[in-house]
Amino acid sequence: MTTTPTAPAATSDTVAALRSLLGGRWAHVRQQARAEFDAEALLPDPALTLEQQRERVAEQMRMLAASDHARSGFPVEAGGTNDIGASVTAFEMLGHTDLSLLVKAGVHWGLFGGAVSNLGSDEQRRELLPRIISLDLPGCFAMTETGHGSDVQSLGTTATYDPASDELVINTPDRLSRKDYIGGAARDARMAVVFAQLVTGPADAPQHHGVHGVLVPIRDDDGRTLPGVTIEDCGPKMGLNGVDNGRLAFAHVRVPRTNLLNRYGDISPDGTYSSPIDNPNRRFFTMLGTLVRGRISVAGGAGAATRTALAIAIRYAEQRRQFSAPGSSDEVLLLDYRTHQRRLLPALATSYALAFAQNDLVSLMHDVQTGAHADRDVGDELRQRQLEALAAGVKVLATWHATHTIQECREACGGAGYLAENRLPALKADTDVFTTFEGDNTVLLQLVAKGLLTSYRDAFGDLDSWGTVKFVARQVASAVVERTAARTLAQRLADVGSSRRDDGDDLLDPAGQLRLLTDRETHVLEGLARRLRAAAKPGADAFAVFNDAQDHVLLAARAHVERVVLESFLAAIERCTDPGARDLLRELCTLHVLSGVERDRAWYVEHGRLTPARSRSVTRLVNEACERLRPHARALVDGFGIPDSWLGAAFLT
Amino acid sequence: MTTTPTAPAATSDTVAALRSLLGGRWAHVRQQARAEFDAEALLPDPALTLEQQRERVAEQMRMLAASDHARSGFPVEAGGTNDIGASVTAFEMLGHTDLSLLVKAGVHWGLFGGAVSNLGSDEQRRELLPRIISLDLPGCFAMTETGHGSDVQSLGTTATYDPASDELVINTPDRLSRKDYIGGAARDARMAVVFAQLVTGPADAPQHHGVHGVLVPIRDDDGRTLPGVTIEDCGPKMGLNGVDNGRLAFAHVRVPRTNLLNRYGDISPDGTYSSPIDNPNRRFFTMLGTLVRGRISVAGGAGAATRTALAIAIRYAEQRRQFSAPGSSDEVLLLDYRTHQRRLLPALATSYALAFAQNDLVSLMHDVQTGAHADRDVGDELRQRQLEALAAGVKVLATWHATHTIQECREACGGAGYLAENRLPALKADTDVFTTFEGDNTVLLQLVAKGLLTSYRDAFGDLDSWGTVKFVARQVASAVVERTAARTLAQRLADVGSSRRDDGDDLLDPAGQLRLLTDRETHVLEGLARRLRAAAKPGADAFAVFNDAQDHVLLAARAHVERVVLESFLAAIERCTDPGARDLLRELCTLHVLSGVERDRAWYVEHGRLTPARSRSVTRLVNEACERLRPHARALVDGFGIPDSWLGAAFLT
Repeated sequence: MTTTPTAPAATSDTVAALRSLLGGRWAHVRQQARAEFDAEALLPDPALTLEQQRERVAEQMRMLAASDHARSGFPVEAGGTNDIGASVTAFEMLGHTDLSLLVKAGVHWGLFGGAVSNLGSDEQRRELLPRIISLDLPGCFAMTETGHGSDVQSLGTTATYDPASDELVINTPDRLSRKDYIGGAARDARMAVVFAQLVTGPADAPQHHGVHGVLVPIRDDDGRTLPGVTIEDCGPKMGLNGVDNGRLAFAHVRVPRTNLLNRYGDISPDGTYSSPIDNPNRRFFTMLGTLVRGRISVAGGAGAATRTALAIAIRYAEQRRQFSAPGSSDEVLLLDYRTHQRRLLPALATSYALAFAQNDLVSLMHDVQTGAHADRDVGDELRQRQLEALAAGVKVLATWHATHTIQECREACGGAGYLAENRLPALKADTDVFTTFEGDNTVLLQLVAKGLLTSYRDAFGDLDSWGTVKFVARQVASAVVERTAARTLAQRLADVGSSRRDDGDDLLDPAGQLRLLTDRETHVLEGLARRLRAAAKPGADAFAVFNDAQDHVLLAARAHVERVVLESFLAAIERCTDPGARDLLRELCTLHVLSGVERDRAWYVEHGRLTPARSRSVTRLVNEACERLRPHARALVDGFGIPDSWLGAAFLT
Repeated sequence: MTTTPTAPAATSDTVAALRSLLGGRWAHVRQQARAEFDAEALLPDPALTLEQQRERVAEQMRMLAASDHARSGFPVEAGGTNDIGASVTAFEMLGHTDLSLLVKAGVHWGLFGGAVSNLGSDEQRRELLPRIISLDLPGCFAMTETGHGSDVQSLGTTATYDPASDELVINTPDRLSRKDYIGGAARDARMAVVFAQLVTGPADAPQHHGVHGVLVPIRDDDGRTLPGVTIEDCGPKMGLNGVDNGRLAFAHVRVPRTNLLNRYGDISPDGTYSSPIDNPNRRFFTMLGTLVRGRISVAGGAGAATRTALAIAIRYAEQRRQFSAPGSSDEVLLLDYRTHQRRLLPALATSYALAFAQNDLVSLMHDVQTGAHADRDVGDELRQRQLEALAAGVKVLATWHATHTIQECREACGGAGYLAENRLPALKADTDVFTTFEGDNTVLLQLVAKGLLTSYRDAFGDLDSWGTVKFVARQVASAVVERTAARTLAQRLADVGSSRRDDGDDLLDPAGQLRLLTDRETHVLEGLARRLRAAAKPGADAFAVFNDAQDHVLLAARAHVERVVLESFLAAIERCTDPGARDLLRELCTLHVLSGVERDRAWYVEHGRLTPARSRSVTRLVNEACERLRPHARALVDGFGIPDSWLGAAFLT
C-alpha cells in the first residue's frame, strides 16, 4: 500500500547497460580502476590527525606513481602515453576515494606537470617530466595570491631578468602578493611553478611582459626550505586535510634564466623578450587555456563524489524505516516518502545528465589536445575557446550540484549522516572548495556569458538581433554537438522550428524539452545583449551597467550550459541500445528537465512560455515522475558502478 | 564611480539603536555575556585533536558552571533563578563561541536538567538539580535510537517494573533500539535520562503505558561504565567534535522504581500505574512539550552562528578587492559587486527578521513557562500548543537559513573561507546538524502544518471553508501577536481587508507586504485542507493522499511561519525610536520580503497575486534594495553587537 511500483524493478541487464553507457569512451579505464583501487588503502580515515592524513595521502601518491595512471596524461616522448581522456577518467575515478588524494594528484601531475608539459620547452619537458611522473620531483603550482585569485592578470609577484648573472629574480613585493593556498607547498613540494609578472630591461625603464610561469626550487632534497623562500602552513581546512596547503613568499630569489617556462614567451641572454604570440592578452589567455584540464578534472571529481553521496543516501533510504502509515503497523521506508524522493531523485537525475555531459566534454578535450600536441600547436583557436567555455560551464554546474546534493544527502540521512563513519561529512567538506578553486564559479559564469556576448558582438553585430542570436546559439552549440549524436536532435529541433507550444508536450517529450531550454537560452542572451548595449554608449558607466545586469549575466550563462547538458543526456539516450535502460533514462531525463523547470518556472511564466495553470501543474508532474522512478532508484544507483567497498559508510547493511 | 552610496553611512547612534533593538527584553544578559565571555578561552581551536577538543569543552563547561548562566534556567527552590528568558538568551550568546560548548551545555543543563526539572517529582528535583547546576552530576539525554529519531512514540527500549525487587528493568531489545548520537554519553556523563516504553503487570499480560523518562546511572564516580551498560563512541563527526556523542545499550539494567521521572506517570509499589493525564496520547505530547526550550535554544544558536558568519563575510567583502572596473586602475571591493551583494545582503535582512522573531518567541516562552512553573501546571494547553508550533516553525527557518547562509558566506570568501583560521569551516560544520536534531526540519514542518489543519478540522468544520481558514489563520497568529506590538499591524491588516492590489504597493509598503504573505498563507492552507479532505473518504488510501500532498504541506507550514516572522520584524520597526535605524530597518525589511517573493514569485504569478510583468520587476527591485543598503552593510553588521574578538577570523584586518 505504501509503495505503488508502476513497473517492475530494473533487471541486472538494465543495470549493466546503464553502467556501460555511463562508462563512456574510457569505460575500460573505469573498469581497471574498479579492479585496482583498494578501498582499505584509498578511502579517507576520519580518525587521523592532520599530519597523519598528510602522510597517508603522500603514501597513496607513491602507490599511484607506481601505477599506469600517472603516465597517461603525459606525452609519449616524456615517458607518458598521451591518453588524455584516460588520464582524466582515472582522475575522476579517484573522486570515489579520498578526495585529498584526488586534489594532491591533480596538483602534482595535473597542474605542476601540466604546466611543464604545456608551457615548457622541449628540453624542460625532457628533463623534468619523467621525474614528475615518477614523483621523484614533487611539485606545486603557485598561481593564486592572497590578494589575487580570479584576477590572475593582476598578480603581484615579479620575475625580473638580470642579464649580468643571466638569472631571473623572483620577488614577493607585499603581503597580498604571497602565493596562497598552494597545495603541496606546506610539506612535500620541492619545486614550484611560480606565476609572476615578467620584467626585462634596465631598472629605470623596465619592460613588462605579463604573467609567465617560472620553475623555482623551494626545498632541497632533504626537504629543507631554500634560502630566500618563506613557507607558511595554511593549517587545518574545512576539508581536504590530506593536502598540505601553504603560503610562499620570495625575497629576491634567483633562478637561471632557463627556468622560465618559455613555450609562449622567452628571454634571450641579452634580455630580449620574444613570443610566438604577439598580442599580450591573447598570449595570456593561451597560457591559461592550457589549464582547462584542471577545470574538467574538478568537474569529474565533483561528479564522482556526488554519485557516491547519492548512492549512500539512497541505499540508506531503502533500509531505514520511520513512522507507520495510517491503518498499518508496518513502518514506511524513507524512500517511500514523497518529500524524501523529492530530495534525492531529481538530484539523481541531474547527476546522470552531468555525467553524460562530462563524458562528452572529456572526449572533446581529448580530441582537441591530442590533435594539438602532435605538432605542439594549440590547434584551432576557436575550438579551444569553445572547449574552455564549455569546461567552465560544466565545472560550475557540476560543483554547485555537488555542494547542494551532498548537503541534501547529509540531511536526508539525519543524525547518521553527520557521523564521519558514514562518509558524508568527508564528501561534503572535501568538495566544498570545488566551487572556488580552478576558477570561482561566479566568475566562471561571467566568463561563459562574456564569451557568448563576444561572439555575438564581434561576428554578427550587423544582423538583426533575433537572427543573430539564433545563429550564435547554434554556432556555440556545435562545439558539443559535433562530438555527440546530439546533432540529430539539434537537426530535429531545427526541423520543428521555434514555434512554442503550451499543451504540455514541451515538458514531457525530448524534442519539446530541448526546445524549451534552447528557446530560453536564446531569449535570455538576446535580452542581455540588448541591455548591455547601453554600456557601449559614450559616457555610460560601463561598470555600473554590467554590475546592474549581473543576475541576467549569470542566468544567460546558466541557461546556455543547461541546454548543452540536456543535449548530452538526450544523445546518450539515443546511443542506448538496451530497451529497459532506455525507457528508464527517458523517464530520468524528464525528471531532470521537470525539476529544473519547476525551479525556474517563474521565468517561463513571466516570458509566456508556460501559462500560470501549466506552471502550477509542474510540481504534480515532478511528483509523478518521482513516483514512477521510485522502484528503480536502487538500479539507477547501481548503474553508477561504484563498488560496495568504495562507499565506506558504516550504516549500510 | 564603483560605489554609489545613496545615503550617508549610518552613524554610531544608529548602530547603537540597532543593537539595542536586537538585544530585546534580555539585552542586559547579552551585555553581560559580551563582558564575560573570553574569546581566548571559548572560541574553537581547529588545531586540536578529537580528544583535546572534548577536554577543552569539558573545561569550558566547568567555567560555565561557576558562572550565573547555568542557574538561570532552573526553579528557585532548586537553587536557580527561574529566569527562562535570560537562560535561553545566554545560551544564544554561546552560539557566538565554540558551538560544541553550546551543544554540550544544551545537552547537560537544557535537556538532562530540563527533563529532571520538568518531568521529575519535587523530591527528584530537590535532590538532583543542585548537582546538575553545579555539574557535579554530568548527564545525558537518551531519547533517540538507531532506528527511531523523529518517531519517539515507537522507541524500542523498555523499562519493565519488577514488583518483587521494586525495580525498573531497562533493556535494549535489538540493534535498532540502541540509544544513538547521545551527547555526553561517550566520555563525560554519569547518568542518563533514558526514554523507554514503560511496562507493568505480569509477564504474560503486560500493560504498556508508553514512553517515559527514567534516571539510569551509566558510569560510577571514577568514570567506569556500570555493569549491564554498553557504551560505544560515535567517533568523529562532521562538526561539534567537542561533544562526545555515544551509543548506549542496556542489558536488563536495574534501577529503583523511584528513578522514574514521575510527574506525568507514576507506579506504586504494587505496580499500579497512575497519571494526572488520562489520555496516553495527550500525556505523551505533554511530556515532549516540556522539551520546547531545546528547540528554541537551537534556533537561537543557529541565529548567533549565522550572524557571526555574515559579520565575517561582509567585513571581508569590505576589505578585499578584485578586478578593476573598466577605465579605472582601482580594484573594486567585493561588496561593490551586485552578485556579491545578492549573496550576502538578503541573508543579512532575513537574519534581522529571524532575530526579532526569535526574541518574540523567547519572550512568549518565558511568560508561558514562568507562569506555569509557579503552580507546577502546564498552563493553558492551547497556549502551550501554539508555543510548540511556533518554536518548531522558527527552528526550521532559522536552521535552514543558517545552513544556506553560512554556505554562501564560505563561498563568498573564496579559498580564504575554506581555511579553519578564518572560522567559517567550523561555523558550517558545527551548525549543519541543527536542521536534524531537536526535530528533523521536514518532520517539524509537517507537524506545524498538521497543527494548522487540526485546528481547522476540529474547531471549524462546519463553517464555510473560506471563512474558516481566515478564522484559523487569525487565531493561530494571535499566539505571537499578543506578545508583540504586531497587534496594531494585524489590526491594520484587518481594516484594510483582503482585497488584492497589483500596483506594486504590496511589494514596497509594510501593510502590503504583510497582506501579501497573509494572503498566501490563507490561500495555501485552504487549498491544502480541500485537498486532504479526500483522505477522509471511506476507502481512500490516507497515506497516499497525504504523501502526494507533501510539497503542499511543507509550503503551508512555511507560508505560515514566514508570515509570523514578518510580523515580528514589522513590530520591531514600530518599536524603534531612532529615526535613522528605523529607516534602515524599513529598507532591510523590504529586502527581506522582496528576496522571499523573488524566490517564490512563481507561486504569486500562478495564483494571480502578481502579473507576469510585475513578477519580472521583482529582481530589479531586489537589486535596487541591495544598492541602497550597500553603504550601510557594515553598520548593519555592527548592529549585531558581536565583539571583534569573537569573530576569530585571521584574515580580518
